[in-house]
Amino acid sequence: MNILTRPILEINLANVLKNYKMLAKIADKAIPAAVVKDDAYGIGAEKVSQLLYEQANCRCFFVAHALEGERISHLVPQATIYVLQGIGADSLAVFQKNGNLIPVISSPEMLEFFKQNNLDGIKPAIQIETGLNRLGFRENELTRLSDDDKKIFGLVLSHLACADEKDHFMNHHQIENFTKLKNKYFPKTLSTLSASDGVFLGEEFHQNIVRLGAAMYGINTTPYRQNQMENVVTLKAPVLQIANLPKGDFVGYSATYRASSDRKIAIVSIGYGDGLPRSLSNIGKVFFKTLNKLTEARIIGRVSMDNVICDVTAVEGLQCGDMAYFADDFYTLDDVARDAGTISYEIMSRLGKNTRFLKVYK
Amino acid sequence: MNILTRPILEINLANVLKNYKMLAKIADKAIPAAVVKDDAYGIGAEKVSQLLYEQANCRCFFVAHALEGERISHLVPQATIYVLQGIGADSLAVFQKNGNLIPVISSPEMLEFFKQNNLDGIKPAIQIETGLNRLGFRENELTRLSDDDKKIFGLVLSHLACADEKDHFMNHHQIENFTKLKNKYFPKTLSTLSASDGVFLGEEFHQNIVRLGAAMYGINTTPYRQNQMENVVTLKAPVLQIANLPKGDFVGYSATYRASSDRKIAIVSIGYGDGLPRSLSNIGKVFFKTLNKLTEARIIGRVSMDNVICDVTAVEGLQCGDMAYFADDFYTLDDVARDAGTISYEIMSRLGKNTRFLKVYK
Repeated sequence: MNILTRPILEINLANVLKNYKMLAKIADKAIPAAVVKDDAYGIGAEKVSQLLYEQANCRCFFVAHALEGERISHLVPQATIYVLQGIGADSLAVFQKNGNLIPVISSPEMLEFFKQNNLDGIKPAIQIETGLNRLGFRENELTRLSDDDKKIFGLVLSHLACADEKDHFMNHHQIENFTKLKNKYFPKTLSTLSASDGVFLGEEFHQNIVRLGAAMYGINTTPYRQNQMENVVTLKAPVLQIANLPKGDFVGYSATYRASSDRKIAIVSIGYGDGLPRSLSNIGKVFFKTLNKLTEARIIGRVSMDNVICDVTAVEGLQCGDMAYFADDFYTLDDVARDAGTISYEIMSRLGKNTRFLKVYK
Repeated sequence: MNILTRPILEINLANVLKNYKMLAKIADKAIPAAVVKDDAYGIGAEKVSQLLYEQANCRCFFVAHALEGERISHLVPQATIYVLQGIGADSLAVFQKNGNLIPVISSPEMLEFFKQNNLDGIKPAIQIETGLNRLGFRENELTRLSDDDKKIFGLVLSHLACADEKDHFMNHHQIENFTKLKNKYFPKTLSTLSASDGVFLGEEFHQNIVRLGAAMYGINTTPYRQNQMENVVTLKAPVLQIANLPKGDFVGYSATYRASSDRKIAIVSIGYGDGLPRSLSNIGKVFFKTLNKLTEARIIGRVSMDNVICDVTAVEGLQCGDMAYFADDFYTLDDVARDAGTISYEIMSRLGKNTRFLKVYK
């Protein structure tokens, strides 16, 4: 008898490396950069940064916050780390301490702040708005930049809104906008436009630097065709208890599930406190590997903070301590996300932050 | 001009203490215990445990996992810490090292494991199943316990499924079941049945120990009437940029929002990577405190990993660096959860795990 209590998050770093190389090859005229913001989408920023720096010679990284850059700075000493949220009063000291952090400046106000604090030797990036309507200089702000201002920047950046839909009109609209603004205001400056999904849109989208994130972590950023990437995440948790559920009995909080016949249930040691979305209640799938075969089962009742209940009536030979699989090669986080009504980015980001997991890197 | 980049999570510990005392007073014949699993629902297990131990003389704590117990063990040396997920091969060493951790045994298999590893001097709790159909001994398993087995236990525990609905038939069903099983198998053992929501169901639900969690953290566990608890969480993030959104323009990923007239937008430095649910896309509310008044605004477009875009056309006098409020006394996490299609427990649990926040305890 095997009694186990902790969920396990397995991360296949070899596949991160493989995906990075595959993406870099597609965009072979551009410099590949690794996006490791939000703790590398939950995969682990230190692990990923060190891996790509040492084994793929990656010399360019993107984070969202300055503190995220500081965390990896010593691991990638010769690399440039761009900070997408830019620089402010609450991050100035981090830039002053870490010379390889480069802010992405997104507004005239932020540019003013940057100039006031003379960070000598740092050539920041400028973000320009081309259709996403998120961060970035609008054209009426670009026209007001002085010639001296324009010379400050070492990189022009923008971001695509709909690059995961190959034929979306927005892609053409944005590349047109980007090309026009870039040529008009920063004709000689390096440029970057695409994240993972943009890599698949063709060479004109690659510019000088491609920012590899989601696809590197195994997410399908080309939902219009089969995923070309290798899976990175396996999520499993032990069966704590197996019990009979008599016909007519209710399951879980608010009694949202009622057995229409006698069932067998497994109580599994994982819940939304571990990052399993509560929206999988009564919907989510779960898999068991028993007697050398894979059997699909269903989450019944509400997902609670620490536990989830599964209908395992059809699972033969199941025992306490066996693992319930929530994501793996055969059912990826993209599949889980579809069931949960969200995107795998969000689930990955949640899972990665959990400390109750046994986190295993392969 | 004030440029800021980091979201801020403010936690009002004084209100946690106030709520604990209020709940303990309602259940004044029972011993109050503090539920600090999942890092005290994201509020911070160390902070909360130390506070209640030192300032409210709390001597009984509940966690889900043994490792969570170990984290607070040294802060509450004279207290008992019950571990709800129980004991297994992957947590045995933690129990051996920390004498004040007490496993909650939920199955015959786990009892066997416990006995094989003679943890001398530890009187575990037993969880019995009374209607939730989650962890716990079923009656056919209780009947097979030997008299010696029954004497092992120091506490009988069960958990209510529908205690947040005052008149739900399940409450009566479960208290009947609990009383019957307790009297039959463990007539002289201490008992605990209710979490926060059960406290409001009346004295028979209080038993010997009440397990105070959600309500202590400000969550409304009595949705059938106004919340009696004080708010604990304020969630805010700085406006990074303010821009005009021309009529006809799209906003955010997949261009899910289109402006039907000229608008003013604010890009705020918080996203689902920080724990703001992506399901708030095009739905969530946000508040601004400008010119000495509170103005409500709306999230437009998709919530992205690091940013969210808000329609601030109606917000007068807004400037970069001003704070956007997502949760506070006037719009609590319960309200946010309703908009996001979940419960505040899940949002709190996510928020608490984030490291990009400036976390401020008051």
